Amino acid sequence: MFEARLVQGQLFKKILDAVKDLVNEASWDCSPSGMALQAMDTSHVSLVAAQLKSEAFDQYRCDKPIMLGMNLPNFFKFLKCAGNDDVITIRATDECDKVTLLFEDKNATETSEYELKLINLDNEYLGIPDQEYTVDIEMPSAKFSRICRDLNQIGDNVTISCVKDSVRFSISGDLGTGSINLSQNADADKPEDGVTIKMIEPICLSFSLKYLIQFSKAAPLSPRMKLSLKTDAPLVVSYGINNSDDEEIGYMRYYLAPKMDEGEA
Amino acid sequence: MFEARLVQGQLFKKILDAVKDLVNEASWDCSPSGMALQAMDTSHVSLVAAQLKSEAFDQYRCDKPIMLGMNLPNFFKFLKCAGNDDVITIRATDECDKVTLLFEDKNATETSEYELKLINLDNEYLGIPDQEYTVDIEMPSAKFSRICRDLNQIGDNVTISCVKDSVRFSISGDLGTGSINLSQNADADKPEDGVTIKMIEPICLSFSLKYLIQFSKAAPLSPRMKLSLKTDAPLVVSYGINNSDDEEIGYMRYYLAPKMDEGEA
Amino acid sequence: MFEARLVQGQLFKKILDAVKDLVNEASWDCSPSGMALQAMDTSHVSLVAAQLKSEAFDQYRCDKPIMLGMNLPNFFKFLKCAGNDDVITIRATDECDKVTLLFEDKNATETSEYELKLINLDNEYLGIPDQEYTVDIEMPSAKFSRICRDLNQIGDNVTISCVKDSVRFSISGDLGTGSINLSQNADADKPEDGVTIKMIEPICLSFSLKYLIQFSKAAPLSPRMKLSLKTDAPLVVSYGINNSDDEEIGYMRYYLAPKMDEGEA
Repeated sequence: MFEARLVQGQLFKKILDAVKDLVNEASWDCSPSGMALQAMDTSHVSLVAAQLKSEAFDQYRCDKPIMLGMNLPNFFKFLKCAGNDDVITIRATDECDKVTLLFEDKNATETSEYELKLINLDNEYLGIPDQEYTVDIEMPSAKFSRICRDLNQIGDNVTISCVKDSVRFSISGDLGTGSINLSQNADADKPEDGVTIKMIEPICLSFSLKYLIQFSKAAPLSPRMKLSLKTDAPLVVSYGINNSDDEEIGYMRYYLAPKMDEGEA
Repeated sequence: MFEARLVQGQLFKKILDAVKDLVNEASWDCSPSGMALQAMDTSHVSLVAAQLKSEAFDQYRCDKPIMLGMNLPNFFKFLKCAGNDDVITIRATDECDKVTLLFEDKNATETSEYELKLINLDNEYLGIPDQEYTVDIEMPSAKFSRICRDLNQIGDNVTISCVKDSVRFSISGDLGTGSINLSQNADADKPEDGVTIKMIEPICLSFSLKYLIQFSKAAPLSPRMKLSLKTDAPLVVSYGINNSDDEEIGYMRYYLAPKMDEGEA
Repeated sequence: MFEARLVQGQLFKKILDAVKDLVNEASWDCSPSGMALQAMDTSHVSLVAAQLKSEAFDQYRCDKPIMLGMNLPNFFKFLKCAGNDDVITIRATDECDKVTLLFEDKNATETSEYELKLINLDNEYLGIPDQEYTVDIEMPSAKFSRICRDLNQIGDNVTISCVKDSVRFSISGDLGTGSINLSQNADADKPEDGVTIKMIEPICLSFSLKYLIQFSKAAPLSPRMKLSLKTDAPLVVSYGINNSDDEEIGYMRYYLAPKMDEGEA
């Protein structure tokens, strides 16, 4: 028996919205510590990892670990039937042939119950080593989304280069070139608007912009996001999921290998 | 000579918007008591009936009953040229070859005049008997629209079942199943948000969801709507049109026969 | 060396947005007095002329006149990368093979630099004689946009006729006819909402509506617009560009020859 009740039900919607266009089928790994999902995107280039800790739920019961394999766009269709303020409960029996979704509105005058058929999936979990990165850049999620969207007008591969207290996103295409430069800055009045750069040594790596644009769809999950870079390691694009007390109750992370022809694209 | 002046001109826009995707051609039956329209949808499955009583108009003159046959999507094109706060006057001579539309803005600094060519249509009016229904369900129009839209994610036919003080809309499809349960409830502070269920005996009938979605486009006409059900009779989906004194000055009604394979779809 | 710094950078975006769907390639004629662009639309029916005087810029340096030939939709792609509150600087060397765009946000924590490749274009400047028109009509830009959009539902060619203190836009099509009548009016409280008609003698000319709809995309540049008519001369559709002190710092003008079969369309 698995049952998890999420008062802030729209978190589920936002997580699915941030993964459904990258990954078609994946399994939720439900264990006493929480729900987690890890999958390569359909073109097997990037890896997406989502987690909601058991603390994220106001009721959480997981008698034994189970895998809920599902078609993610279909799961999103069901979740879209929940109102934004609905409480969402996910329930599964040990047979794992279906998952039951309960949506309750605030006034409890309307309840909905949906059953989604599950599918059997081979699950290969990649161990992702915790490591120290050469450069960590934190910025508002909306700023990162806008940078990706802007540069996408000009070309396909973005080069991220970091020197001292500034980071540069540059691109080149048939029409010309573009570069966006951010300086480390902290607005004492609006700390959530600042850009923070932690650098051990300068770095310069190139990435496929279309994946970054997909990743930036996680922006509704968090006002801030982080880029972690290291030579010969995948870029990590992270969005923390915090509760109203600002404690991390989960995350959405994306991993993307650099383009081989590094340097200015 | 027919002339009708509607101060709340956007009522016409809303009525046409609620019928133009269902019915291509129909006649407005103009009589001293008001304007009425009745037509089968283009696939001859559902029936739509609209009425605006003469009391809806601040000036209304109908010397003798006439039929104004028209292409409804084209009529809507003309009505879209009226501003939302415009006064609309409809005028026709006894020849019935064209209808004149006058739009006046509030400040009377701009007036528009449009002439739409009319068409000859065979008009077969179906007598719709007034009858008592086994179940009457009243709810906010927006709630009904949302229920139809949500369930449409899952399947094609919705089953409406009513037992005691609650009604259930359920559906099943390739991906799984869904059901939405409403309890009778009245919010003393917000009576317009309540759900009212009047039941003589339990009922369970299935309907094609795509028609209900079309019907729900009448929601802008009224904050509340009503479903009337009876075994072996068409479902009636009604939206009353009230003036600012809350007197009914017209209605929009849709009739849809149940699916033969009744019960849980 | 050419360098022009526009604090109100979004003016550039709005100008390009108002010309990019009409004209594919054109040259900016940069001289000490300002930047100007003149081009026939791609179907060689209408002429568009834009100007930003040197006074529009807070820094303006033009050592010698140069022509910046460019693909306008591509230039717009680059400009879209500027935030709405960004300061935009345009810079070009005398080689004229590329133009550099600098975008600075208000806090100067983010700067972007784009380089657009330029193209060589034959530039034939048409002298447009200053002349007196028989009729000048001024109205809110939003009203003109709406009139064009409304009449476009009904037909292709609009007839503008002016008699005494009123102007009539009329149209006819397969479905019927339409006409919109404006009276001269001045609202003392809201002078920007008034309609002003200066007429030397009555006039009646027809124009292709699809071009007027294109022209009306300049509405974001100015709250007011002007139509200037004269028999045997092109219609002029003008949008003045004013600074915050209400001084004209530029304009957007469109010229369109009347349809030969004049009179009521």
